[in-house]
Amino acid sequence: MITSASNEKVKKLAALSQKPKLRHSEGVFIAEGIKMFLEAPIAQIKEIYASESFLEKNAVEKLNGMRYETVSDDVFKRLSDTQAPQGILCLMKMPKYELDNMLCADKKSPLIMMVEDMQDPGNLGTIMRTGEGAGIDGLIMTKNTVDIFNPKAVRATMGSIYRVPFIITDDILSMICELKKRSVKVYAAHLDGSADYDECDYTGASAFIIGNEAGGLRRETADIADCRIRIPMKGQVESLNAAASSAVLAYEAVRQRRKNKGLK
Amino acid sequence: MITSASNEKVKKLAALSQKPKLRHSEGVFIAEGIKMFLEAPIAQIKEIYASESFLEKNAVEKLNGMRYETVSDDVFKRLSDTQAPQGILCLMKMPKYELDNMLCADKKSPLIMMVEDMQDPGNLGTIMRTGEGAGIDGLIMTKNTVDIFNPKAVRATMGSIYRVPFIITDDILSMICELKKRSVKVYAAHLDGSADYDECDYTGASAFIIGNEAGGLRRETADIADCRIRIPMKGQVESLNAAASSAVLAYEAVRQRRKNKGLK
Repeated sequence: MITSASNEKVKKLAALSQKPKLRHSEGVFIAEGIKMFLEAPIAQIKEIYASESFLEKNAVEKLNGMRYETVSDDVFKRLSDTQAPQGILCLMKMPKYELDNMLCADKKSPLIMMVEDMQDPGNLGTIMRTGEGAGIDGLIMTKNTVDIFNPKAVRATMGSIYRVPFIITDDILSMICELKKRSVKVYAAHLDGSADYDECDYTGASAFIIGNEAGGLRRETADIADCRIRIPMKGQVESLNAAASSAVLAYEAVRQRRKNKGLK
Repeated sequence: MITSASNEKVKKLAALSQKPKLRHSEGVFIAEGIKMFLEAPIAQIKEIYASESFLEKNAVEKLNGMRYETVSDDVFKRLSDTQAPQGILCLMKMPKYELDNMLCADKKSPLIMMVEDMQDPGNLGTIMRTGEGAGIDGLIMTKNTVDIFNPKAVRATMGSIYRVPFIITDDILSMICELKKRSVKVYAAHLDGSADYDECDYTGASAFIIGNEAGGLRRETADIADCRIRIPMKGQVESLNAAASSAVLAYEAVRQRRKNKGLK
């Protein structure tokens, strides 16, 4: 059992929890909590750490014979990103996706969500979770977006990070051009949109792009999209929460698609 | 200038920040940050606290001649609920609303959002913010919902708490009956909904009710509603984030209303 916070593995996990660069150079991330453990694809699990009290309560059935390290409750608390740790975390291999994973031939009308420079890990994780629920085919993020492997973001995905294909790009403009070349219409969510979001037809291949929480989309990004759309707002609201916007847009697209199917 | 954390006012503010019961017995809450200060209705402001460095940067124009207390940066940090305090907070009088504020005669088809026992302050605040943007007429919360005056919830409203009428009820079932009596149709968001949310007509007076993040709605509550609606989910997603659900529902209602208007 690991009982010291200066144990090499513990120090490594703590560093991985805090340092996005280290996570990406090593190609691993931390998934914490029972749900994240139970939904983890076996092939991606590198290491499992369980706290003493987790093992007392859940050991045999949950761990299912897999190899794990026991960690004292105190040390686990230091590793955990939550106030009430559930006592289990996995070191996971990062998955790798290409654009083809999102636009593969059997998907007639792919639906893609894109985010530019978003900073809140909870928002980003929620966008992925809501996206999976709506049925998006992938999430594309700029390099300056908060790391999707940030522990808070991972938790907010509620497991969607294991299932939704995603790409981190350092050139969003080229990515948009590539999508357009492949017949995906790109819609920029914008306060100065020229159309209300529900006036456009998303039954064909479509991508939405949503900007930074404070500043919205960069001008070049909004300019290169096919269309700027706005979500109408009443009262004195200046903008919607980014995750709320993405929910409204993704669900409008799938609403149209379901309705369209029903009519055929 | 207040320089000590044991100053009586500072101790009181710290207690108000942490204790919902004390907030409600005194009828006051704390609104922190520049946006929350600038949008605060003058009549509700009881006290203003500004940090030394806030005053150095912004004093004259922002405070506009209003009386305030100066607080040292160190003490302000202790009072603040954020990691990077903006240096200004107000002690505000709680507003009081009645159901008539939401259902008043000039609103032909009121739109109400209700939440039962929600626990995440960020979610609750975002629901109010998104609600104002969509154009809801009021937010009704159960007593066991996290306090809307919790500093995190207040911040997440981005000022909507000053403008959206809200009621905290200790008897949600009677409240639903009262709404139904007043011709408001009550739709319960439920994983076992009998209709997809976009199959119902929300152009008349409508209320949505959303449950606790982990457990959803209580059975009695779902049973008493006019209709259970579900938001379709793909993938392995078990539920949507509560704020994402409320965004999808509120914006579907206003989409139908705008479309309906356009057709007339």
